[in-house]
Amino acid sequence: MAKKLITFGEVMMRLSPPGYEKFSQASSFELVYGGGEANVAISCAYLGMKAAHVTRFPDNALGKAATQFLRKHWLSTEQVIYGDDMIGKYFLEKGAVHRPSEVIYEREGSSFSLITPSMVNWEVVLKDADWFHWTGITPAISEGAAQCCLDAINTANKLGITVSGDINSRSNMWKYGKSMQEVIPELVKNCDVVITSSRGIREMFGLGELDDKFQSLAKQLITLFPNIKKVVKKTRRTISASHHQIQGKLWSGEAYIKSEMLNITHIIDRVGTGDAFAAGLIYGLLHYDDARAIEFASAACALKHTVPGDVNTVSLQNVQSLMDGDTSGAIRR
Amino acid sequence: MAKKLITFGEVMMRLSPPGYEKFSQASSFELVYGGGEANVAISCAYLGMKAAHVTRFPDNALGKAATQFLRKHWLSTEQVIYGDDMIGKYFLEKGAVHRPSEVIYEREGSSFSLITPSMVNWEVVLKDADWFHWTGITPAISEGAAQCCLDAINTANKLGITVSGDINSRSNMWKYGKSMQEVIPELVKNCDVVITSSRGIREMFGLGELDDKFQSLAKQLITLFPNIKKVVKKTRRTISASHHQIQGKLWSGEAYIKSEMLNITHIIDRVGTGDAFAAGLIYGLLHYDDARAIEFASAACALKHTVPGDVNTVSLQNVQSLMDGDTSGAIRR
Amino acid sequence: MAKKLITFGEVMMRLSPPGYEKFSQASSFELVYGGGEANVAISCAYLGMKAAHVTRFPDNALGKAATQFLRKHWLSTEQVIYGDDMIGKYFLEKGAVHRPSEVIYEREGSSFSLITPSMVNWEVVLKDADWFHWTGITPAISEGAAQCCLDAINTANKLGITVSGDINSRSNMWKYGKSMQEVIPELVKNCDVVITSSRGIREMFGLGELDDKFQSLAKQLITLFPNIKKVVKKTRRTISASHHQIQGKLWSGEAYIKSEMLNITHIIDRVGTGDAFAAGLIYGLLHYDDARAIEFASAACALKHTVPGDVNTVSLQNVQSLMDGDTSGAIRR
Amino acid sequence: MAKKLITFGEVMMRLSPPGYEKFSQASSFELVYGGGEANVAISCAYLGMKAAHVTRFPDNALGKAATQFLRKHWLSTEQVIYGDDMIGKYFLEKGAVHRPSEVIYEREGSSFSLITPSMVNWEVVLKDADWFHWTGITPAISEGAAQCCLDAINTANKLGITVSGDINSRSNMWKYGKSMQEVIPELVKNCDVVITSSRGIREMFGLGELDDKFQSLAKQLITLFPNIKKVVKKTRRTISASHHQIQGKLWSGEAYIKSEMLNITHIIDRVGTGDAFAAGLIYGLLHYDDARAIEFASAACALKHTVPGDVNTVSLQNVQSLMDGDTSGAIRR
Amino acid sequence: MAKKLITFGEVMMRLSPPGYEKFSQASSFELVYGGGEANVAISCAYLGMKAAHVTRFPDNALGKAATQFLRKHWLSTEQVIYGDDMIGKYFLEKGAVHRPSEVIYEREGSSFSLITPSMVNWEVVLKDADWFHWTGITPAISEGAAQCCLDAINTANKLGITVSGDINSRSNMWKYGKSMQEVIPELVKNCDVVITSSRGIREMFGLGELDDKFQSLAKQLITLFPNIKKVVKKTRRTISASHHQIQGKLWSGEAYIKSEMLNITHIIDRVGTGDAFAAGLIYGLLHYDDARAIEFASAACALKHTVPGDVNTVSLQNVQSLMDGDTSGAIRR
Amino acid sequence: MAKKLITFGEVMMRLSPPGYEKFSQASSFELVYGGGEANVAISCAYLGMKAAHVTRFPDNALGKAATQFLRKHWLSTEQVIYGDDMIGKYFLEKGAVHRPSEVIYEREGSSFSLITPSMVNWEVVLKDADWFHWTGITPAISEGAAQCCLDAINTANKLGITVSGDINSRSNMWKYGKSMQEVIPELVKNCDVVITSSRGIREMFGLGELDDKFQSLAKQLITLFPNIKKVVKKTRRTISASHHQIQGKLWSGEAYIKSEMLNITHIIDRVGTGDAFAAGLIYGLLHYDDARAIEFASAACALKHTVPGDVNTVSLQNVQSLMDGDTSGAIRR
Repeated sequence: MAKKLITFGEVMMRLSPPGYEKFSQASSFELVYGGGEANVAISCAYLGMKAAHVTRFPDNALGKAATQFLRKHWLSTEQVIYGDDMIGKYFLEKGAVHRPSEVIYEREGSSFSLITPSMVNWEVVLKDADWFHWTGITPAISEGAAQCCLDAINTANKLGITVSGDINSRSNMWKYGKSMQEVIPELVKNCDVVITSSRGIREMFGLGELDDKFQSLAKQLITLFPNIKKVVKKTRRTISASHHQIQGKLWSGEAYIKSEMLNITHIIDRVGTGDAFAAGLIYGLLHYDDARAIEFASAACALKHTVPGDVNTVSLQNVQSLMDGDTSGAIRR
Repeated sequence: MAKKLITFGEVMMRLSPPGYEKFSQASSFELVYGGGEANVAISCAYLGMKAAHVTRFPDNALGKAATQFLRKHWLSTEQVIYGDDMIGKYFLEKGAVHRPSEVIYEREGSSFSLITPSMVNWEVVLKDADWFHWTGITPAISEGAAQCCLDAINTANKLGITVSGDINSRSNMWKYGKSMQEVIPELVKNCDVVITSSRGIREMFGLGELDDKFQSLAKQLITLFPNIKKVVKKTRRTISASHHQIQGKLWSGEAYIKSEMLNITHIIDRVGTGDAFAAGLIYGLLHYDDARAIEFASAACALKHTVPGDVNTVSLQNVQSLMDGDTSGAIRR
Repeated sequence: MAKKLITFGEVMMRLSPPGYEKFSQASSFELVYGGGEANVAISCAYLGMKAAHVTRFPDNALGKAATQFLRKHWLSTEQVIYGDDMIGKYFLEKGAVHRPSEVIYEREGSSFSLITPSMVNWEVVLKDADWFHWTGITPAISEGAAQCCLDAINTANKLGITVSGDINSRSNMWKYGKSMQEVIPELVKNCDVVITSSRGIREMFGLGELDDKFQSLAKQLITLFPNIKKVVKKTRRTISASHHQIQGKLWSGEAYIKSEMLNITHIIDRVGTGDAFAAGLIYGLLHYDDARAIEFASAACALKHTVPGDVNTVSLQNVQSLMDGDTSGAIRR
Repeated sequence: MAKKLITFGEVMMRLSPPGYEKFSQASSFELVYGGGEANVAISCAYLGMKAAHVTRFPDNALGKAATQFLRKHWLSTEQVIYGDDMIGKYFLEKGAVHRPSEVIYEREGSSFSLITPSMVNWEVVLKDADWFHWTGITPAISEGAAQCCLDAINTANKLGITVSGDINSRSNMWKYGKSMQEVIPELVKNCDVVITSSRGIREMFGLGELDDKFQSLAKQLITLFPNIKKVVKKTRRTISASHHQIQGKLWSGEAYIKSEMLNITHIIDRVGTGDAFAAGLIYGLLHYDDARAIEFASAACALKHTVPGDVNTVSLQNVQSLMDGDTSGAIRR
Repeated sequence: MAKKLITFGEVMMRLSPPGYEKFSQASSFELVYGGGEANVAISCAYLGMKAAHVTRFPDNALGKAATQFLRKHWLSTEQVIYGDDMIGKYFLEKGAVHRPSEVIYEREGSSFSLITPSMVNWEVVLKDADWFHWTGITPAISEGAAQCCLDAINTANKLGITVSGDINSRSNMWKYGKSMQEVIPELVKNCDVVITSSRGIREMFGLGELDDKFQSLAKQLITLFPNIKKVVKKTRRTISASHHQIQGKLWSGEAYIKSEMLNITHIIDRVGTGDAFAAGLIYGLLHYDDARAIEFASAACALKHTVPGDVNTVSLQNVQSLMDGDTSGAIRR
Repeated sequence: MAKKLITFGEVMMRLSPPGYEKFSQASSFELVYGGGEANVAISCAYLGMKAAHVTRFPDNALGKAATQFLRKHWLSTEQVIYGDDMIGKYFLEKGAVHRPSEVIYEREGSSFSLITPSMVNWEVVLKDADWFHWTGITPAISEGAAQCCLDAINTANKLGITVSGDINSRSNMWKYGKSMQEVIPELVKNCDVVITSSRGIREMFGLGELDDKFQSLAKQLITLFPNIKKVVKKTRRTISASHHQIQGKLWSGEAYIKSEMLNITHIIDRVGTGDAFAAGLIYGLLHYDDARAIEFASAACALKHTVPGDVNTVSLQNVQSLMDGDTSGAIRR
């Protein structure tokens, strides 16, 4: 029977000029929705898992439309909360070659940022779930969001649900009075799987030296928080805005495993590729051994670069085929 | 030589689903910009006047793009102020027949709402101008915006510039601690031309009885504020979302004049038609007698219903031709 | 608590040239999905009911996409069955004024037409439901579809669920060897609510004379099948492809009630308006008395003419407002 | 066997802003092709006739694309001539209600205007044809075009082919040194069917008085040029840019016949409706008596108002149905 | 004088999501038409040859629209047959990098599949032709299609017309009761030019060993069927869905010739590239020696990868320039 | 304070099929405007300079729309002249890999080509300017345009304004009776900065030998015209239509400086990249030393390849970042 994933976080309206138009040229915006955690849930749903996302939207037609996007992409949305007036937004101008993509956020004062712990009954939400996933963006948004996240992790722990967190060091996001270093460790310490980077481990937990390799830092993190079972990172080499290389690395507490490096030579949409990696990792760890799991995660991540929008809508078969080494992209009839 | 108009107010990003799609159906938004006062300025610019608009946008690519929209539509934008992070927005779902258009505003905390009086030097801005126009929306947005508006009117009075205000009674817009009745009279009393409605006069100034006709109310308003020279109203009969009738009415202090009633049987875009009326009135009063001016205003208003977007981009010739009674819309080669 | 509706029937891919292009001019198709019964379910879901649709799609990405359309529009899709290779389709060229819309069907051999009774467990599907709705199209498609429909009605009867059928006389649809007259009466006799036409009653049940009015025919139908409680019809006057008039009529067994006639002067999309009527009737009978119910049904039907696509996505508030006589379509801010 | 029509004239690239956008708002143009005579040929081809068009295009990819448009719409294009560099163009901004459509022509120096008589072998072109049609626009374009037109008429007369001309009085088009009055009568005198207007007869042939009705003027024209058999006119009442009324009138030399007046309440595209009338008349006179022919022509004309682009792509069945009085535009499945 | 090509086979409606959208994301489909044999004919027509295609479409507006597509792209369509109700279709989701394009066919029961030999008079169709081309897809569709194909080849042989066949081994297409091995050899034995692959020769004719190179297999095929003059293959190296390499190989009975390998680094549309190769080969063999012909074929094939849609619309000059080694794609003004 | 640039030259309407469609496939055109000199002005405006462009447009809605494009992209347009009827045009079909982009010009008889010296008062136009830029295209258009250009240069010299010219050898553009060699030297001799090529120097000034390197030719040019201070060239290596390499070279009279070679692996729009180079050079020479200036010019040029349309709308920050060696195009949030 399909495994069930619960995610929690803000979902933003994404507005982007068509094709490669710049903001100064646009007379329309393409409209999708996205957010790190919901992206993971949707990606897992396309792979065949059951998935539900918990978030908060304004109580108007735009909040409803955002929910409809999640439903269309296979999520359960019974736990969506409605209130206040503004949906978080980001504007994305797509770059190419040497020209960077540009992102402008408008999420201050959004309905999600005004969430409070009493709005979610985690016992109900997490019932029957196999996995709970959160990211480091959520506790950076507001104190209420951070507290909800902590409640979710604690409840998951209580219910014996695996918890993963995808946390990176973005200190400039923290504006509500608490610092990353105050909040994040509390959340991370009871996670089973942590996706992060070397810099992240150093800056968020004060571990290691500048020269320490990821494997060493991962070990230190597990020493600090022994409940953590695996520490994972995705290495990205940005040759240009149109050409990246991706490789997954996993410290299992016992072994250090690297995936094949995948060469994405013609990027369609780079946004959400980290979330596709996280989703691939969750699916992989639930269905394969660690070595296969990290290959699966990397393959899922690589494929997302070719899908427009925030969410990875490729099939299980697509990921498996690439995981098994077929990089040809040969037409399927 | 062309007359010069200065306007002041918020300009919002307008996002609308294509055609008659509802919010629940949209996968893209058409993007234009609009705001009551800028709409008036642009409309006058298309009629051949010089026009500049004073506003405040976020200091990012979206604020620049909004400015570019104003420039494209012939406004001077030297006086645009940049600061803070959010552009006001409204989402418009276009209705038809019995189905209403729906508007969702997101303007709280916008860059414009954070404007303060010291940001504008009205002596510089109004130099060489012939007319200053404001609307009742601006003082409802924030105390800073209200104060800027009052400064503008006072400076215009000092410089001998004609002032018009388009004010309606929207008490639910007033959220910053002052009421409509406290603020509006102070702004209106030194205007030369006031566009309003019977209800507006009753509710904002406490004048008249429920049964009083517009002519009577207009007289009372001039009695209260003798600097006002003309009181004008636009009557709209909404047969359906696709079919309206428009008539202009003007009390000149001496005479009560009504325009022909115009029958707009196939509406393309109803937004901004009031602003087109105000622009037509300004142009008309600057170039014709009162009777022609009110016909001109009504014709401009009627034509706007056939132009997509917030702003009236029809030509002087279009308006004159309709003012002179040619309702045929016969093809021009 | 929200009432729950179950519907059963084919959902087709709808492909239409943009705007008013003819098939000979199209270089793209707009893509939505629709089918009489699912249209009813979606319409009810937008009004606030719970709704699930039972259908069968090909087991490929197109079948999945069709399901996603239903999910996006708030339906539960747990009961969708996948199998075989072809999704039913219809091509729609939109007419105007004297030019008729043209529809080309391609539904022969579709996955739905190959459905067999063993594929649906109606006891499970109908559990907790308040209402089951079917249309006369389903039994015309194939013997399997007809049998499934009969099973559903019987199960609904057994579970005490209200049953409505929307049946019209389309003898040319019946190609699989049985006639309309053989199959339809068996299905109708245990329905609570029947939506049909005078011609339908005469041709499908052999009742009445050519001159008999609807009220008389409705009485005869109830005499024949005493389980039927209400017989309803929607009268449409087609002034042109762009202008229709709609009126609902209901025989309650005791009273003959007519709604206001609604004048739809600028049609956007005429398809699915009968389904919007049926949905309005179901909602109305569940929440109002008969007189209000028929007004509600007519208002829902009228509003659908202004919504692109097959499905009625207007809100409860929209329908109530029109039911209460506000035909102005005045903008809502 | 299908009758064969030959037409001759310029085909222009037509560039129009999408929907109801004005030139000042467009960021793309919709692209079709059109010209009075080719429009007639295409319309007849859709009705089931064989049709070929003679014209001249630049010898580049744009000239080829224009030819492809004619081919797509069922014309034979073997006789298209290629040379010089510029395709004639017109820009069309679509109006509504009181706002006129605006047309900007750019046809000076076009490849067609540089045509010379030796470029066309009319004996070959007109072989096997039943009908030749020209319009008064062609001889206004250039002396070469006028001479080609005269050659075509003379050859048609020699081969016993029926000739029709659709000529209106547009004196401002005549810029190459000859006047309308010098050239047109020579072309008209050997036509069998003339479509024109009262003003046209007065101004081009100096016949009649200002008060003379069309019937009287038509008689005078036949008296002047006894080879003319029928004189026809289309009356258009322009209620607004969105609403026209159309009626056909025909003087057969013996009887004066009027069609029903058709009420086009929601115009989609008004361009080419006169050509649709001419095409309907040609088809009608070839297949019906005069009374039916003028009804057929009016019905074809009315239907064109609902088809985007210059050309009438409705079917024979559509026209016959409207000719027979079905104005309902009821959906065809 | 231009050489004339006749082709025979199914033409399908091709429906694809815009850009790189997946089926799960599409709200519209781009619409073109294509089929292996018609693609060859159109490609040759763009190169300057005369070309006609024989096929069968439903007798409705969609069948007409498909014919119009062929006409637009320069084919003669006098021999198109109309009957039955369904046009074959394929849905194409475009891949990139590691993500494969996905194709879903719906061609079962199409009008073409129901073709019977008596519907085509090959003596008439092939009159004046220089070349007849077929592919291995046609005999796989239905017994009627296979028989028509055989009749065409026999008639072409009788009339001294060169015959080419492009046959690959797709055993899973053969569903009507005969196997590939039963039908194909009969069709191939009287062809002059055969385009195939090593696997094709082994599987369809039971020739050679798994290790045999193409040259050896080609020799064996000619030994088996001495009427065959040339055996040709196109080698494709799929580096990714966005990057292929192409090389042509030809056994002339005497010499084994390879073209340059062409490196297509940014694929726009990979569909129909094999047909572009076949068309290039036909044109090449008609106008050049074998060595130039295979270079021409490869260049045509490479260029098709940059043209959206099924058909190769590049010019003779484009192909010649690339054949002559100019791979720069430098802008042409 | 921002430096001010004045440019002079024709601005054309640019019409291009969407995406990679060929002219034979287009049913719409994307609409922008461009011209070598205006492109430079706009590019400099986006970098933060003040810029005005002098040109001549038809006195109709299309001329106004062209002006609006310039205004939108930050140019001052007070000096635009209106007259005559035709706007110059070019049609652009975008190529890829081995398929060249195709350009068709239609600029003969355009409003700009009919400009005469008395139409521009250069003393007024150039007042307060820091730099005047022209290209070799302008004097090739017409004698009037050439004379205006000469007047501008002379006035700039008189006012002490720096003059740059971007001149290439396109002898086939010169059709009005004077040759390139007669006109260009007179214009170049008083320029401060000349952008050209080795071939340009040889063909336009009769300098050097075929083997002479650019550095040598540049020296000879300065020897001939000692007022010239710097001679600059942009080297482009066209690997394919999708992949170019760019390098700038500058002879300062004293030193020969080359920029880094930039590798543009995924070209979006190649048009206007030379103009982006010129703009970058102007900005660079005004704000940096020669070595930085040529790096800045090359970076600006490289970035333009990723921006759709003729004009370079990247920011100063984008160019500086690439100039400083960040080729990663990493996303900016």
